Amino acid sequence: MDLLLLSNSTNHGRGFLEHAGDEVRDFLTGVDRLVFVPYALADHDGYTEKVRTALRDVVEVVGAHEREDPREALAGARAVFVGGGNSFRLLSNLRTRGLLDALRGQVRSGHLRYMGASAGTNMACPSLRTTNDMPIVQPPSFETLGLVPFQINPHFLDASPGSTHMGETREQRIAEFHEENDVPVLGLREGAWARVSGTAATLGGETGAVLMERGRPARELAPGSDLGFLLDAHPRFDEPAR
Amino acid sequence: MDLLLLSNSTNHGRGFLEHAGDEVRDFLTGVDRLVFVPYALADHDGYTEKVRTALRDVVEVVGAHEREDPREALAGARAVFVGGGNSFRLLSNLRTRGLLDALRGQVRSGHLRYMGASAGTNMACPSLRTTNDMPIVQPPSFETLGLVPFQINPHFLDASPGSTHMGETREQRIAEFHEENDVPVLGLREGAWARVSGTAATLGGETGAVLMERGRPARELAPGSDLGFLLDAHPRFDEPAR
Repeated sequence: MDLLLLSNSTNHGRGFLEHAGDEVRDFLTGVDRLVFVPYALADHDGYTEKVRTALRDVVEVVGAHEREDPREALAGARAVFVGGGNSFRLLSNLRTRGLLDALRGQVRSGHLRYMGASAGTNMACPSLRTTNDMPIVQPPSFETLGLVPFQINPHFLDASPGSTHMGETREQRIAEFHEENDVPVLGLREGAWARVSGTAATLGGETGAVLMERGRPARELAPGSDLGFLLDAHPRFDEPAR
Repeated sequence: MDLLLLSNSTNHGRGFLEHAGDEVRDFLTGVDRLVFVPYALADHDGYTEKVRTALRDVVEVVGAHEREDPREALAGARAVFVGGGNSFRLLSNLRTRGLLDALRGQVRSGHLRYMGASAGTNMACPSLRTTNDMPIVQPPSFETLGLVPFQINPHFLDASPGSTHMGETREQRIAEFHEENDVPVLGLREGAWARVSGTAATLGGETGAVLMERGRPARELAPGSDLGFLLDAHPRFDEPAR
């Protein structure tokens, strides 16, 4: 399996995928055609065009929605990119279009490299349960692709010391996740990514990550950290701590 | 129907419910016993104790979880308070315990006054779809009590002009909600609340609200605004704009 799981597609003040340009080019080595999955946003054509422009010197981009049956676009493809947006809408669309099973099978068999950003990274985890998004539509299940056995929280945001807002901080939200589920959560800061190649996994980018597990203090992971141990996780959902 | 729907239970730097003390006392006039629903947090006893302490001079507080069947606590009660926390957990618990139907029936018939804060306010709307919370557990449906025919977004947060974070602003999230659903959304800033008495509704507190509707610019509502027109809304979910 080859996975590139980005926290975000765009860093502040930079172009689409620009902050991860070298990594994306490396990941797509030898790939002629990339299937882009635009369903996290409403404007599929516009979103695909944006990706096509950003990757025009790297790879040919085909929108999954440009085929009547988007599974046809995946047939024979060697790489897919699932873009960010609203993860509830994305998951609903993947299910409706039969893409969840198709993606899972082709990526797990090693035939298809999987690149995700934000909501696309949420999809690679076992469940939608650590998304930051608003549940604007209701998917029949929160079960996602399960390409890795741990959860990722994209756009991970450290608590702001001066804030007077009383909504939960990101770390408080994930602590609540751990009250109900026993699954490691990798909080990927914007600018960071996880790269998985077979049984190896590494933290890329320059901003690092925070690893949160039930019953343990949160742990800072520096850029370049080995994440291989997370591939041995045994996720247990709906296992209340109390 | 009598509803008091608070954006939040606690303003920064103040005690639990302190910012809305006069309104809460007015709302509970003539009520001896208040049933508190603590299921949005994991620690039911601790949460109920906190509410009991905060309201000790106002009303006797009984935790719904203190009865084997929490519906028994509601029998004959004249007021209920559904506390904040994680709204996915709250909704799952209300369903499992048969409280969703019991609450809906008793509040709609006018026998039970309904007070909610944050997640408790989400419950009063038709759907969970405008919550800010992380989906840490999966309720079988996003359908909530539907005591009002519009959506509320509690803890509404204006965009921060200096932010470099690339996650969606609250207004962007609600614009995505409107791409999929045609339902007015009242963004209640912290410190604000909606009070509903029969066919009348008013915006309380000192911070105001923002009304967001499909195809219209967001509209600022000043403290004291009449919200009665929102009680005539006809919510349409899963009606994509495109």
